[in-house]
Amino acid sequence: MNFASDNSWGAHPAVLAALARANEGAVMGYGADPVTARAEAVIRDALEAPDAVVRFVATGTAANALVCAQLAPSFGRIYCHEDAHIETSECGAPEFYAHGAKLVTLPGADGKLTPETLRKALEAGAGAGLNGGRNAMVSITNATEWGTVYAPDEVAALARVAHEAGLPLHMDGARFANAVASAGCSAAEMTWRAGVDALCLGGTKNGAMAAEAVLFFDPAHAEGFDYRCKQAGHVFSKQRFLAAQMLALIEDGLWLQLAACANAKAQALAEAVTAGGGRLLAPVQSNAVFAEIPAEAHERARAAGALYHLWTDRPVEGLDLVPLRLVTAWDTPEAEVARMAGLLAG
Amino acid sequence: MNFASDNSWGAHPAVLAALARANEGAVMGYGADPVTARAEAVIRDALEAPDAVVRFVATGTAANALVCAQLAPSFGRIYCHEDAHIETSECGAPEFYAHGAKLVTLPGADGKLTPETLRKALEAGAGAGLNGGRNAMVSITNATEWGTVYAPDEVAALARVAHEAGLPLHMDGARFANAVASAGCSAAEMTWRAGVDALCLGGTKNGAMAAEAVLFFDPAHAEGFDYRCKQAGHVFSKQRFLAAQMLALIEDGLWLQLAACANAKAQALAEAVTAGGGRLLAPVQSNAVFAEIPAEAHERARAAGALYHLWTDRPVEGLDLVPLRLVTAWDTPEAEVARMAGLLAG
Amino acid sequence: MNFASDNSWGAHPAVLAALARANEGAVMGYGADPVTARAEAVIRDALEAPDAVVRFVATGTAANALVCAQLAPSFGRIYCHEDAHIETSECGAPEFYAHGAKLVTLPGADGKLTPETLRKALEAGAGAGLNGGRNAMVSITNATEWGTVYAPDEVAALARVAHEAGLPLHMDGARFANAVASAGCSAAEMTWRAGVDALCLGGTKNGAMAAEAVLFFDPAHAEGFDYRCKQAGHVFSKQRFLAAQMLALIEDGLWLQLAACANAKAQALAEAVTAGGGRLLAPVQSNAVFAEIPAEAHERARAAGALYHLWTDRPVEGLDLVPLRLVTAWDTPEAEVARMAGLLAG
Amino acid sequence: MNFASDNSWGAHPAVLAALARANEGAVMGYGADPVTARAEAVIRDALEAPDAVVRFVATGTAANALVCAQLAPSFGRIYCHEDAHIETSECGAPEFYAHGAKLVTLPGADGKLTPETLRKALEAGAGAGLNGGRNAMVSITNATEWGTVYAPDEVAALARVAHEAGLPLHMDGARFANAVASAGCSAAEMTWRAGVDALCLGGTKNGAMAAEAVLFFDPAHAEGFDYRCKQAGHVFSKQRFLAAQMLALIEDGLWLQLAACANAKAQALAEAVTAGGGRLLAPVQSNAVFAEIPAEAHERARAAGALYHLWTDRPVEGLDLVPLRLVTAWDTPEAEVARMAGLLAG
Repeated sequence: MNFASDNSWGAHPAVLAALARANEGAVMGYGADPVTARAEAVIRDALEAPDAVVRFVATGTAANALVCAQLAPSFGRIYCHEDAHIETSECGAPEFYAHGAKLVTLPGADGKLTPETLRKALEAGAGAGLNGGRNAMVSITNATEWGTVYAPDEVAALARVAHEAGLPLHMDGARFANAVASAGCSAAEMTWRAGVDALCLGGTKNGAMAAEAVLFFDPAHAEGFDYRCKQAGHVFSKQRFLAAQMLALIEDGLWLQLAACANAKAQALAEAVTAGGGRLLAPVQSNAVFAEIPAEAHERARAAGALYHLWTDRPVEGLDLVPLRLVTAWDTPEAEVARMAGLLAG
Repeated sequence: MNFASDNSWGAHPAVLAALARANEGAVMGYGADPVTARAEAVIRDALEAPDAVVRFVATGTAANALVCAQLAPSFGRIYCHEDAHIETSECGAPEFYAHGAKLVTLPGADGKLTPETLRKALEAGAGAGLNGGRNAMVSITNATEWGTVYAPDEVAALARVAHEAGLPLHMDGARFANAVASAGCSAAEMTWRAGVDALCLGGTKNGAMAAEAVLFFDPAHAEGFDYRCKQAGHVFSKQRFLAAQMLALIEDGLWLQLAACANAKAQALAEAVTAGGGRLLAPVQSNAVFAEIPAEAHERARAAGALYHLWTDRPVEGLDLVPLRLVTAWDTPEAEVARMAGLLAG
Repeated sequence: MNFASDNSWGAHPAVLAALARANEGAVMGYGADPVTARAEAVIRDALEAPDAVVRFVATGTAANALVCAQLAPSFGRIYCHEDAHIETSECGAPEFYAHGAKLVTLPGADGKLTPETLRKALEAGAGAGLNGGRNAMVSITNATEWGTVYAPDEVAALARVAHEAGLPLHMDGARFANAVASAGCSAAEMTWRAGVDALCLGGTKNGAMAAEAVLFFDPAHAEGFDYRCKQAGHVFSKQRFLAAQMLALIEDGLWLQLAACANAKAQALAEAVTAGGGRLLAPVQSNAVFAEIPAEAHERARAAGALYHLWTDRPVEGLDLVPLRLVTAWDTPEAEVARMAGLLAG
Repeated sequence: MNFASDNSWGAHPAVLAALARANEGAVMGYGADPVTARAEAVIRDALEAPDAVVRFVATGTAANALVCAQLAPSFGRIYCHEDAHIETSECGAPEFYAHGAKLVTLPGADGKLTPETLRKALEAGAGAGLNGGRNAMVSITNATEWGTVYAPDEVAALARVAHEAGLPLHMDGARFANAVASAGCSAAEMTWRAGVDALCLGGTKNGAMAAEAVLFFDPAHAEGFDYRCKQAGHVFSKQRFLAAQMLALIEDGLWLQLAACANAKAQALAEAVTAGGGRLLAPVQSNAVFAEIPAEAHERARAAGALYHLWTDRPVEGLDLVPLRLVTAWDTPEAEVARMAGLLAG
């Protein structure tokens, strides 16, 4: 019973089959192969963005950090939520790639920025002069680090604030499929139609082994990006094996089916939490449950071998309610979800 | 008939099988899984280096550049051959990762540094004072960019010069398996017994999809390296899929069989070059042939659809002898090698 | 009546005289001259630190950022107050020089960190693993950005927390002279005797044109620092003109006289603020007054031509009390201080 | 008798007087002062470039490296002479500031690039693809590191090649005054009229204490430059003391008088070298003499206490002709020049 992370789980059989298919014969390296071309095309189609520049890298940190370096100069200010992955979980990769750019972190309920908070912060940053650096970009995560989902109109409201300040909007979509599946909108509505300029479209948590797509909806934003990826060691010589993974997920809509499947399991766990006297710390809108559960439920679950992260850096001994995070994947076994739900519901 | 690069070819069935095996059940991410642990152990065994720190990344550029950043400060001088991959083919990745470190390039026949050339350069560098930066490390490639192989005693002679100057020796082993198979020595004799401090052990050109190992024979050299990889976006969340590839290659000696197979095909092509009136530009000791062939042979080969890189940046029209590079892989079909040999031999 | 900043004011005549004296004859460049040697010696004496490494740069931002790069790797976490100059006023210089290191900012009354806040933050950081980067150093400012002064025992308490975590302690002493003069202790008591590992000793705000000293009390901390400064373009070829400024200030104790003079003027203004119905926002312990003054006093002062910074990024129209900062320098004319005091006192 | 470097010598009395004048009263910091405004205007006038952006920094390395970072991305290729100061004498500052950009060094007689060499190199670089990085800028030094001077038409020829490749041309003018004085042209003819896009106009070697101007003739090239300087710690709070130095040199043409004076002394030494049986290693066109002199002359000079750099990194014992560099400054005493000339002439 592993609810520690969606990256604890595996790759979809279609991904492995695609890798096997891509392993036939010889092609030219570094992306000059038909699988890469096809994967790019399929993703442009899925996003209804025929002009978008699509590239592939292997990790979400690489995707995010390379986009930050692309859109922000070394003296840039990058605005994000205080719990954003780029701030808390990438070991300073954005700052490293952007040579010292500063992440300006903002509070917001349920892992979301609000337009008003963002506007005020951008105004303060614009007034900081040389001392504070120059406003460069805004980054949001969807689904968020708290498992919630920005609806397209929420994205659009933030995009308006960013654009009014002359800044591009980046979406960290490590769990983009979960967000789209949850919102019931199209991928285009969630992104460029709402004003998103750059998207990191995660594959790894969605059933790939290690694959992410980076999209720039305006090709001008991608100027030089291939060099940047190359200099970072993020261009695969056998690039087709990256592209094939994304291709397998995106064509025929598998990505959204897998995401919906993971989301549903999280809903089941969320209901069990509530039924068992626990409390949700944020609305459950994607494939993660942030909750406090009764200490007895925690003990039951641990005794049964359930794996998950506590959501505090303090000791939980003696607490009546234990804060935790449960993450589901497309391949978390239904039986394990049901068993865990039973343990939570008590 | 693709002789453009060994990365034009694919992954060994054992690698795909290993990926499928690694795709069972849930494990913890970021390398805290049994496949990663086993791959590290198998590589330590293969190198007879029980204390070595072993890590995995997906590209050779990442491996080399991260090692450079690990061993050289921003003001460091990194000595290498003027045709070294880190100088010519990584888009400045070592300088980027090491924040401005300077590659000092040296000449040398057949892609090899000589101890005397290196010693003089290190002395000059040591005398450059603040102006020139500080001597930091020496990097060699084995097999070299010219398809030749340093024998263990040649490595040892360079290591002595480096160590006398207080510098560590790095070996870019993108084709390390080919070098070891060619030299007929052990991997240990080729590396730490000869004085190598850090090794990039290539998997991608040896039958992996995208996997390289980095070894530091003295754990002190690896201090902080995990953070460095993480900050660069080169730590996979599903790390087992990187490790599994290397594991499949290394255990049971598959890596050396595949390398020997590729090397033998290059020998066959080399003999055909000579038989056909061509001239080898360097001894063929691994899986690459650098040669000049008669213009007619070139025309025959192109007409037959053979793919390979010309080894000049000038037009070849009108030349009697056409310079080119032919690279073989473990899975270059024997029939294609034979056919190409026929075209070369005329 | 300029109370905008101490850098609005000039250089002491002794500094100009020292520059003129240093301008005689020819010497070797880049610090290999007798003035530099003497300035280093005088500073070591003033700090009672015969083994300290002393270097000179022209700006406080350079001094701080170079020390950060010296003590923190790219993946390091640098702990400081949320109002620290390195966070708010250096345009990301520490992150730039340290190639992406992350400033972790902490709250604290009156611009000061407390040992308890620091200890908790270091513990949280130590638990952040690869995601969060590695704890690297602690930086405090003395006198602080709020014009307060850490007493030696307060410094020592923070140093103990830093050292227990294995981290060095840096002191940004852009106004170090003001702090020492205010605390009535020795420079040694304020620094290495209390556990400070690296000190940026400001000259510019203390009567120099543009000169700061950097001290590493343990020479091991200075390893490679000269190369770092050179690579940053912060080594002057005519280095004696930097050193001469610091020499003029430090020898014979001029620095502390000037600082005491500036501090006393701030006290006079502080008393006037209180007398006039205003409120101090922080204790006035050095040469800066942070206060709220009645709107009428603000209007009187502005009408009289007084220059100072408002201490808010919001409009002050309609406020009863106007927040502001007043900074004094050794050469702020006594008459202007008296006049401003009169305007404040009403 | 110090002929080691022009930075061994001092500042002109007019520079000290200007510093004293700038030290009156209070002004706003960071360049918002009338001295800075006037210095910028005077330099624009001197260059006949009313739209140029002019900024001041304290060292030539800072000036060059900041311009490189401004004009080249991290993956950029910067073309320069193999003896360029940015390659040999700045400890990797350009690579550091430009985050890993690669200096591509080219040969050329007398320290000069030729259009043909440059054109071929740019073509090769353009063909290097992702592997080699992207062509970004061309940098020349005038006067060169060998004391020669590019005439305006030589600059123009190089600028045409650079511009045809879409690249800006930078001129490292650490000794720009010497070049202009030598060529007998206007500063405009030597720079923007010939196609120079960015100029580092050296003050330090021309009679300042530590001051250089950076000019971008097209303001678009200066976009964000102020932030870049600030983040590097190269913006002085009391900026007027930088600007005043340049102002004193440029207004009334003092800079060219001082340069002509230094140049004339070098001519005198050059004639003495030839008269004494020595050999010039390059034409003497500015304030440096590169020559081989008879061993006896070298012994005579050393015995008389003359200071200069040998121009080899090998031992000179036993050589008949000793290679050396002699540099003159505006304030090298005439008597010392005459004495040295006597020693050389024998």
